[in-house]
Amino acid sequence: MTQPDNAFVDLNTREASQVAALDLGSNSFHLVVARIVAGSVQILHRVKQKVRLADGLDEADVLSPEAMQRGLNMLALVAQSLKGFEPDKVRIVATYTLRKAVNAHDFLVAAREVLPYPIEVIAGTEEARLIFMGVAHTNHAQGQSLVVDIGGGSTEFAIGEGFDPLLLRSLDMGCVSFTQRFFANGDISKKAFRRAVTAAEQELEHIEKRYRKLGWRQCFGTSGTIKAIAEACKALQLSPRAGVITAQALQQLAAMVLVWERVEHIQLEGISQDRREVLLAGLAILTAVFNRLDIDQMEYSSAALREGVLYEMEEELTQHTSVRARSAESLATRYDVDTEQARRVLATCRMLFDQVAANWQLSKGDLGDLLGWAALLHEVGLQINSRGVQRHSGYILQHVELPGFNQEQQHLLATLVSLHRNKIRQLETIEWDIYRWQDIRYLVALLRLGVLLNIKRQDDFVPHIEASASEQRINLSFPSGWLVDKPIITADLRREQHQIKALGLVLLINGEEDLTLAD
Amino acid sequence: MTQPDNAFVDLNTREASQVAALDLGSNSFHLVVARIVAGSVQILHRVKQKVRLADGLDEADVLSPEAMQRGLNMLALVAQSLKGFEPDKVRIVATYTLRKAVNAHDFLVAAREVLPYPIEVIAGTEEARLIFMGVAHTNHAQGQSLVVDIGGGSTEFAIGEGFDPLLLRSLDMGCVSFTQRFFANGDISKKAFRRAVTAAEQELEHIEKRYRKLGWRQCFGTSGTIKAIAEACKALQLSPRAGVITAQALQQLAAMVLVWERVEHIQLEGISQDRREVLLAGLAILTAVFNRLDIDQMEYSSAALREGVLYEMEEELTQHTSVRARSAESLATRYDVDTEQARRVLATCRMLFDQVAANWQLSKGDLGDLLGWAALLHEVGLQINSRGVQRHSGYILQHVELPGFNQEQQHLLATLVSLHRNKIRQLETIEWDIYRWQDIRYLVALLRLGVLLNIKRQDDFVPHIEASASEQRINLSFPSGWLVDKPIITADLRREQHQIKALGLVLLINGEEDLTLAD
Repeated sequence: MTQPDNAFVDLNTREASQVAALDLGSNSFHLVVARIVAGSVQILHRVKQKVRLADGLDEADVLSPEAMQRGLNMLALVAQSLKGFEPDKVRIVATYTLRKAVNAHDFLVAAREVLPYPIEVIAGTEEARLIFMGVAHTNHAQGQSLVVDIGGGSTEFAIGEGFDPLLLRSLDMGCVSFTQRFFANGDISKKAFRRAVTAAEQELEHIEKRYRKLGWRQCFGTSGTIKAIAEACKALQLSPRAGVITAQALQQLAAMVLVWERVEHIQLEGISQDRREVLLAGLAILTAVFNRLDIDQMEYSSAALREGVLYEMEEELTQHTSVRARSAESLATRYDVDTEQARRVLATCRMLFDQVAANWQLSKGDLGDLLGWAALLHEVGLQINSRGVQRHSGYILQHVELPGFNQEQQHLLATLVSLHRNKIRQLETIEWDIYRWQDIRYLVALLRLGVLLNIKRQDDFVPHIEASASEQRINLSFPSGWLVDKPIITADLRREQHQIKALGLVLLINGEEDLTLAD
Repeated sequence: MTQPDNAFVDLNTREASQVAALDLGSNSFHLVVARIVAGSVQILHRVKQKVRLADGLDEADVLSPEAMQRGLNMLALVAQSLKGFEPDKVRIVATYTLRKAVNAHDFLVAAREVLPYPIEVIAGTEEARLIFMGVAHTNHAQGQSLVVDIGGGSTEFAIGEGFDPLLLRSLDMGCVSFTQRFFANGDISKKAFRRAVTAAEQELEHIEKRYRKLGWRQCFGTSGTIKAIAEACKALQLSPRAGVITAQALQQLAAMVLVWERVEHIQLEGISQDRREVLLAGLAILTAVFNRLDIDQMEYSSAALREGVLYEMEEELTQHTSVRARSAESLATRYDVDTEQARRVLATCRMLFDQVAANWQLSKGDLGDLLGWAALLHEVGLQINSRGVQRHSGYILQHVELPGFNQEQQHLLATLVSLHRNKIRQLETIEWDIYRWQDIRYLVALLRLGVLLNIKRQDDFVPHIEASASEQRINLSFPSGWLVDKPIITADLRREQHQIKALGLVLLINGEEDLTLAD
């Protein structure tokens, strides 16, 4: 279908813009810079640097200063390449190691000094989704595909069709962590290999039934581990063609590797010295994956997480689609939210937000979007119980899968809805990395007011309210006389004046005078 | 419809049995003793004793030693009346004050010394449900009814039809707590009364929309507060007939009471000296209820919570119906549980339970039922996320409404499902009142084994397992050779041997030898 009306739009988007995606993996950091031209993505250059971040993670999940320094050094290099990029043209995602590290915040604070873009720590399923998107955009597949990515600390599994991910999961097993667990001393033993395969199979037990039931027509593998195994299979002529790993080839390769006695003796074309150290673990995990998911053959795909990030940026920039908006809407449908009430709360929040955004400096970034999604989703907890609904909504939003949201955005959303009414309980002392508590508490205040004013759940109940704000104050001016015959709303606002103090804010009503009149 | 087949059953149930229900309210304790004959309940006697338990609750929700002693003295008296009653013929429920008191456990421990029956603390909605059942069994109503009960600390609202409760809610406002809050000094002022009405209306805001939307044909009120108001209305000839409170009568009565200046001056027929102290608070709450729910008239029902308890005992004893089983099944449906898997886990749990119940002394009481419901519901958390499903199931079961379960039973169920797999996290040091941790951990162990052995989610996978137990051990003997070609299940069992130690239990497999063979 040709759409001549779009010619003008096309001309606009033809302005090439450069974007960059950086993936802080547990093994390597990957930077990809691309040009977006007329909706297509042209990769300009890729840089991969081994950092072995996961090596610095001890048993208590504390990341060592040395590993942090390795990471920061690399980020300083990257900062050179990214000079001049606008904030919305760069996306940086971090995976397993920074998900796990209890002191990740320290690293993120230091990183901000070196590289002036936010680092988004993403959940395992979000990682799986982005990997799938990277593969989906660069491989032609018919029907459903399975994508497997063996990382340093986790392995992701995605099934999807076209650009729709259908089943996403991340398991805590990776080539670095399994090396530490089963092959730490450098000896090669069949028994240790068998134990590693069994341990991986134990992990897979939890997902195999659902994955096999949904099924797939072709299977892709991404990640350095799978690339190395595919190259070794090709070099040894175990595979029918380059980039393909068959079940038989995998078994043969493992048998050959197990002939050596020490890891450092392994000599295989396609396997670099670096890769050698984690090869046995990678082979064990891949063997378990082939076994439990009954895979005949897997094709290596060079596109993975960073490409997924890149293609999603392209879509958001040129087509103005929002994965997060779709996620929030789909969740609202799944939890059967009273959308009319959500719409009323949203309208009130937006009316107030628009008037105070300038003084509270809320216009930059996505704070307005986050408030909107919180308004949409604040009552998902009704599915559990109307008593304490705010806590239940917070729990659900904290733990549910929200594609497109990084961990901090999801946590922010959960925080907002959990504070949408009642007493503002002792606030957790969360260390925010991307957002600032200063701003978040403004959103909390606006959401609470939106909910409070719509407690009657009636259309056209809330009048036009004049809102004005200074740093620690918000004043709401109601139409003259509107509050007079509304003792309950008045009492609610009076109670809210008290509660909002917990946010360090002062709420004034009609310049504070009218309220006392109603007393 | 006559059912001659039932004649024999009728003869059996014609054996009269005496049952007793005791309600530990925030104002009074009520004991009702009844005879169950041929499925009907004949009340033998009722005792009401004012205890004012809620009076002893301070601002930090600590129950005073004096109030506890008043309660214990009353329980000692009741113990005399209940001598010789079988445990399953007595049910004792406690409401608001013991729900709220942070030191309720101390009272319950002391109570057990005085009165050898468990005291069940019930949630507000469960209280509402039982009140509705009491009214439903003793009043003939057509279509939907609204039932309102104003207690010392909470007010319950129920809408139902026939014997089916449809909407249940409890609000934290009662005649004792509102007296403390608005009328503590004994002065009568219109302003304080108006503030109390507004505060009650603020509470009602959260439920009024749903209640009005569902609607009702007739409205019943229970509780001493409503009884007193109905009697005053009758004495002053404000109402069309005895036991009825109209909106107009309520307004007139309030206006008359507000003429006095001090509470102790109030002189009204039907209002005892005791009742006088909490009359203004009761009038304010009832006025708010009439206003917000737009009630024209309310009829007093003498049957309430304790009668609800009694009728439910009758049904369970003579018709073997189980409200809890229906609740569990309905929740499983609502959360779309994979019932085939639940059935497999249940079958395995039951197979093991039957073999170890004697040695572990699990046969008495409802421990087997609770294990069964935990098996049925252990995967409700999948609705939130499959990752960490056990925590999500635990959260849902802790917070959802489960009619028929008292708070400890619900907490037990939540505890079981939250431990159904993975590491047994540091166990909360919960103080159990009705159950013993000793027994609960046996149920945890059995549920975990049932889940573990069915991880493949296949019918006919689990063989007949011989289970034997001593106090701190359980041995599972699998059919010869069954484990040999199952390295993953074997590894799972080995891991479970390690994890189950957290319960103070030792798991042996085939007398411990075979497992090491598989190594």
